[in-house]
Amino acid sequence: MRTKSSAPTMKDVAQEAGVALGTVSKVFNGIPVGESYRVRVQEAADRLGYQVNNYARGLKTNKTFTAAVIIPSTTHPFFSLLTEELSRALSLRGYRTLLAITSFDLASEQQCIEMVRQNKVDGIIALTYNPDLRIDDSLPFVSIDRFYSASIPCVSSDNYGGGQLAAEKLHSLGCKNLLFLRSGSSVPGEPDKRGAGFEAYCQLHRLSSQSLRIDDTEGIRPILDFIDSQIRDGHFPFDGIFCSTDHLAVDVLNHLTLRGIPCPEEVQLIGFDGLKDFFTHKPVCSTIVQPVSEMARTAVDILLSQDRFRLSALTCLPVRYQAGGTTREDVSGS
Amino acid sequence: MRTKSSAPTMKDVAQEAGVALGTVSKVFNGIPVGESYRVRVQEAADRLGYQVNNYARGLKTNKTFTAAVIIPSTTHPFFSLLTEELSRALSLRGYRTLLAITSFDLASEQQCIEMVRQNKVDGIIALTYNPDLRIDDSLPFVSIDRFYSASIPCVSSDNYGGGQLAAEKLHSLGCKNLLFLRSGSSVPGEPDKRGAGFEAYCQLHRLSSQSLRIDDTEGIRPILDFIDSQIRDGHFPFDGIFCSTDHLAVDVLNHLTLRGIPCPEEVQLIGFDGLKDFFTHKPVCSTIVQPVSEMARTAVDILLSQDRFRLSALTCLPVRYQAGGTTREDVSGS
Repeated sequence: MRTKSSAPTMKDVAQEAGVALGTVSKVFNGIPVGESYRVRVQEAADRLGYQVNNYARGLKTNKTFTAAVIIPSTTHPFFSLLTEELSRALSLRGYRTLLAITSFDLASEQQCIEMVRQNKVDGIIALTYNPDLRIDDSLPFVSIDRFYSASIPCVSSDNYGGGQLAAEKLHSLGCKNLLFLRSGSSVPGEPDKRGAGFEAYCQLHRLSSQSLRIDDTEGIRPILDFIDSQIRDGHFPFDGIFCSTDHLAVDVLNHLTLRGIPCPEEVQLIGFDGLKDFFTHKPVCSTIVQPVSEMARTAVDILLSQDRFRLSALTCLPVRYQAGGTTREDVSGS
Repeated sequence: MRTKSSAPTMKDVAQEAGVALGTVSKVFNGIPVGESYRVRVQEAADRLGYQVNNYARGLKTNKTFTAAVIIPSTTHPFFSLLTEELSRALSLRGYRTLLAITSFDLASEQQCIEMVRQNKVDGIIALTYNPDLRIDDSLPFVSIDRFYSASIPCVSSDNYGGGQLAAEKLHSLGCKNLLFLRSGSSVPGEPDKRGAGFEAYCQLHRLSSQSLRIDDTEGIRPILDFIDSQIRDGHFPFDGIFCSTDHLAVDVLNHLTLRGIPCPEEVQLIGFDGLKDFFTHKPVCSTIVQPVSEMARTAVDILLSQDRFRLSALTCLPVRYQAGGTTREDVSGS
């Protein structure tokens, strides 16, 4: 560590800014103060060339002001948005983001956790697919979408409610024969509740419905084969489909189009996630939108909470329906 | 910092693995050893529950084995891919990624640099838009796409060559009247050379060409207005367009389609970047592909090089042309 005897101290900054030492300390520790105070302290620090030494600060406070984000990928639109929102939420709390990308590799997920522990981060927010992940209690850990135990808080969207909402929408849009399609990880997770919520609604309202679930290791071929097997004389028996993700919904939409089954005229389709086309910024299909920004903020709030033991084990944030061209909406409604 | 007197040491790992202490040290410092040695050391460390304490290691070696990646966004497909590739390349060298997302905000870029300096990272890789960025020489810094000075190495794709290649392709595909369209930052950067290369080729081969450049702060409206102003009786005078990005190319394609100008039948179009549709994995347009993975590896190699002063100030990596439906290729060719 370089040290200069002439380096300005926090005291110098307080004097330069004409504020109390405690105010300077608050500003550099990310504790809210009046905006005018914050600006005065920052300007004084800039004039003096004062720099917080977080490394030294870490030695004193035993904090690194860094949190790790463990995520399967940044190139999937949902994960890339989640990464950006988590980074923003951490930044707003004065925290830096240590990013670990696991590429959906289970061994790599465990390695990432060991790695970030070694790096003395203050906590971890992770979206993982490893059911056997070893997480000890020595570090604050918040899971996204995966429920490990009551002692590991999990944040997700209201997947069950979203499944119900999808069924309710298709029902209200006149669908009589519903289909749930799911392609996803074999590892149980909160997203599995999408189908459960959908089926519960159908059962309660005595709607005819069928479900097909496959592991994504198989690719989506079994789903496309199932669709083909159902088509008789150019007619598809289901008039409403709920897909477990927007990605799957788009694949199903393209396949139905290829087979000459018009959507939304003959079959209405709802996905889950709320992905937007990068170029047009339009939804890629009618969908149940996950509140990604709120999920990120909530995960960070829980991670940095001083009172972790009074927190909810599972926090499910509200989803909403969004029309996106694959359902038959009134022009007036949505 | 927690310490346990019973915690296994590197010596214990060496004994357990039956290898020299130096081998263990190499493994945990990311220095290549034979794969069988690496596995033995890792397994012995796992059995003993040995954990490298990078924080303590940092105090000894003055290294954090962490590099910062400063990037405008992770939701733009090019940046999200670059982030993933940089993280992968750093990980392969035993380095962690501290991610700083600037949201294209110039003040935020400078703050990120101060922030990561405070965090004692070993180096910074940044893609920035701030022309006045203050970068001192105390930390290794590699820039992507922005040339700061001869002492700050910059890695980019061969933008000039890519522009030439686009003109050559359109020329060889029979285009007679070319147009270059650019929407981008007002801050000079390597991507500006795309247009320069394109124009140089046209001039050399006496091809009729015109260029329109706008700042992205204006949105793309001026470009669409220009296109509209050129259309006479349903005819568009240009038969070959090179756009500075795939994003712009897709916007132009959609606008031409809206105006009834068929592409590639009447106008052929080439973009730049090599973006793929997230759902279909197909190119979004014919394009000049940036070698993102190689750019990331090169940036990391330069950052971690022991002999930084013998490095090239600017490294331009080769691009390639990729057909993507907006040009008229032979079925046989590409």
